[in-house]
Amino acid sequence: MSAFRFELTGTDGAARTGMVHTPRGAIRTPAFMPVGTAATVKAMLPESVAATGADIVLSNTYHLMLRPGAERIAALGGLHRFMDWPKPILPDSGGFQVMSLSKLRKITEEGVRFRSHIDGSEHFLSPERAMEIQRLLGSDIQMVLDECPHFSATEQEIEKSLMLSMRWAQRSKTAFGTQEGHACFGIVQGGVFPQLRKRSAEMLQEIGFDGYAVGGLAVGEGQKAMFETLDATTHHLPVDRPHYLMGVGKPDDILGAVLRGIDMFDCVLPTRSGRNGQAFTREGALNLRNARFADDTAPLDTACRCPACRNYSRAYLHHVVKAGEIVASMLLTWHNLAFYQDMMAGMRTAIAQSRAAAFARDFLAPYEKNTETD
Amino acid sequence: MSAFRFELTGTDGAARTGMVHTPRGAIRTPAFMPVGTAATVKAMLPESVAATGADIVLSNTYHLMLRPGAERIAALGGLHRFMDWPKPILPDSGGFQVMSLSKLRKITEEGVRFRSHIDGSEHFLSPERAMEIQRLLGSDIQMVLDECPHFSATEQEIEKSLMLSMRWAQRSKTAFGTQEGHACFGIVQGGVFPQLRKRSAEMLQEIGFDGYAVGGLAVGEGQKAMFETLDATTHHLPVDRPHYLMGVGKPDDILGAVLRGIDMFDCVLPTRSGRNGQAFTREGALNLRNARFADDTAPLDTACRCPACRNYSRAYLHHVVKAGEIVASMLLTWHNLAFYQDMMAGMRTAIAQSRAAAFARDFLAPYEKNTETD
Repeated sequence: MSAFRFELTGTDGAARTGMVHTPRGAIRTPAFMPVGTAATVKAMLPESVAATGADIVLSNTYHLMLRPGAERIAALGGLHRFMDWPKPILPDSGGFQVMSLSKLRKITEEGVRFRSHIDGSEHFLSPERAMEIQRLLGSDIQMVLDECPHFSATEQEIEKSLMLSMRWAQRSKTAFGTQEGHACFGIVQGGVFPQLRKRSAEMLQEIGFDGYAVGGLAVGEGQKAMFETLDATTHHLPVDRPHYLMGVGKPDDILGAVLRGIDMFDCVLPTRSGRNGQAFTREGALNLRNARFADDTAPLDTACRCPACRNYSRAYLHHVVKAGEIVASMLLTWHNLAFYQDMMAGMRTAIAQSRAAAFARDFLAPYEKNTETD
Repeated sequence: MSAFRFELTGTDGAARTGMVHTPRGAIRTPAFMPVGTAATVKAMLPESVAATGADIVLSNTYHLMLRPGAERIAALGGLHRFMDWPKPILPDSGGFQVMSLSKLRKITEEGVRFRSHIDGSEHFLSPERAMEIQRLLGSDIQMVLDECPHFSATEQEIEKSLMLSMRWAQRSKTAFGTQEGHACFGIVQGGVFPQLRKRSAEMLQEIGFDGYAVGGLAVGEGQKAMFETLDATTHHLPVDRPHYLMGVGKPDDILGAVLRGIDMFDCVLPTRSGRNGQAFTREGALNLRNARFADDTAPLDTACRCPACRNYSRAYLHHVVKAGEIVASMLLTWHNLAFYQDMMAGMRTAIAQSRAAAFARDFLAPYEKNTETD
């Protein structure tokens, strides 16, 4: 089994392009990871997800530990086999979702006790258990357990939370141990405070990780604060390790973050929007519910090669969205993921050709005047 | 454009196998037609429907006339192009669904006035309008408008309704006129009364149709009465025209009807069951919600080559059904349609080899002891 390795092949300013090598295949960076919450990228078959250009998917430790259970998935041969996705999988550590979805959560030094949002049953997640679950799933990239404070917390509260997350990061890394071909990523916290972000980045490097995520952003602070925080963070991260911005985002969030040194992204936006009748296109975001599409014979996006664009009119997509048909979710999810992957591919090429900023500006132009997304 | 033509290639008792030739491709009979109500076979892409072996799909005049509208579909290039299904389409005439779904319906000699179940708007469907709508859709096989009395109606009521349906059949045929490459089917009514069925069959043949449907069955009369009615009906239908049993049914309904001379079927059962977590397999019908599948590493049906069976365990299907994931509807619909098409293919071969009854008996054996379907 070959080792986990990050290969940087080009830079353009702070933007980087390269390849994360794993035994389950390479991940071209900058990379967008579709979210497969409950062992499925909603409304998609895995071969379709791969056909859009995805090299890796995210899954959610919190959801899978509650249903169907990590030990069960391990007994069934691991998550890749369970969900029929042979390429790399990165599960989050469960921290963010425990904080936001579960009931009656109680955080202590040891970990977090909470009740399932499904059946109210009580569970406990510690750094050690979070890593054990990810190992049971067979995760290629494993994430440390961190605490995710609310973005409106004070600097003192954020600092206190950060120090807990750093102790949990050390315990997570110790629990991860050494796993040939698998990687363990630390998560930089520190809210929108540059000094805390710097300190977090340095503390994580003292522990030593295979990659570094930036957490606690895209939680309501706004794009300007997010970009400023990235500007104050990414240059404190090691150049020779992938940088992953968790839970981001809209096309302009992603391209702006790539220009600031981020290599990996995940977000529910393209999949969730697709299920809600929203499409990202090269003309901007479109709401297919809009009556103006009822007689529109044009394809959704003439430059896209996904089935929704190749085989159907906007009029058809409008019809199936209005009728609440499952095929609307299937087609618009496929399209949105294809659009996101095309965007990443375009950005990778642009970085290699030293025209990253120009590509981002041109690609995002339709989104500046866009009014149709919620 | 070649003509519509039925080619009978083999018989075994009353059972027949052959081919309905149309300009859009041949339909191997006995044929099962998946239902694509609102211009989509729910939870499936058309190429997947074709991959299961379907040669033709049904669509619903009632649904399409209300949304998005027949004139709109015509302006968009017809239903085949709209829904990306290049093979034959058979829309029902709307009669059955107007009777069962719409509000405030009022039937007169002229036609039926009703309110849409979607928005309450008022509409009128006459034999002439039903045929016009089907022509606007671009239907390959067009169905006459008929009245569908409740199965508990008296013989007098059924007879009165039948005579109206026969007058409507004449008007439908006149409205259809001559359309090269397109076919017009009459619908035999008459409830469970052999004399009425015979009379209906004879009256329709006096008008002259390209195919003959049997309507008004599978509406609550039970399988025994349905089979007795078929026994009293199909030998009154012309041998050189396809016989279509509308809205049927479970595997044993279908194979029993094939043994009684039926060539074509449609039913929502495989698609609707799939969305409800029910699978038809060679071991009988299975309810994937059942907890006994939670750790079952076996494929759904070892003899099936659909993606659900090739790529996943029953444990996975159980998980996605329980989690309410769209992929559960996608996979189980695909499987159920593949199972139905495999059943029809097996029956076609069996008829050609003069072992139709034995095939039906063996194939249905697991269904006799089956307890898991609702």
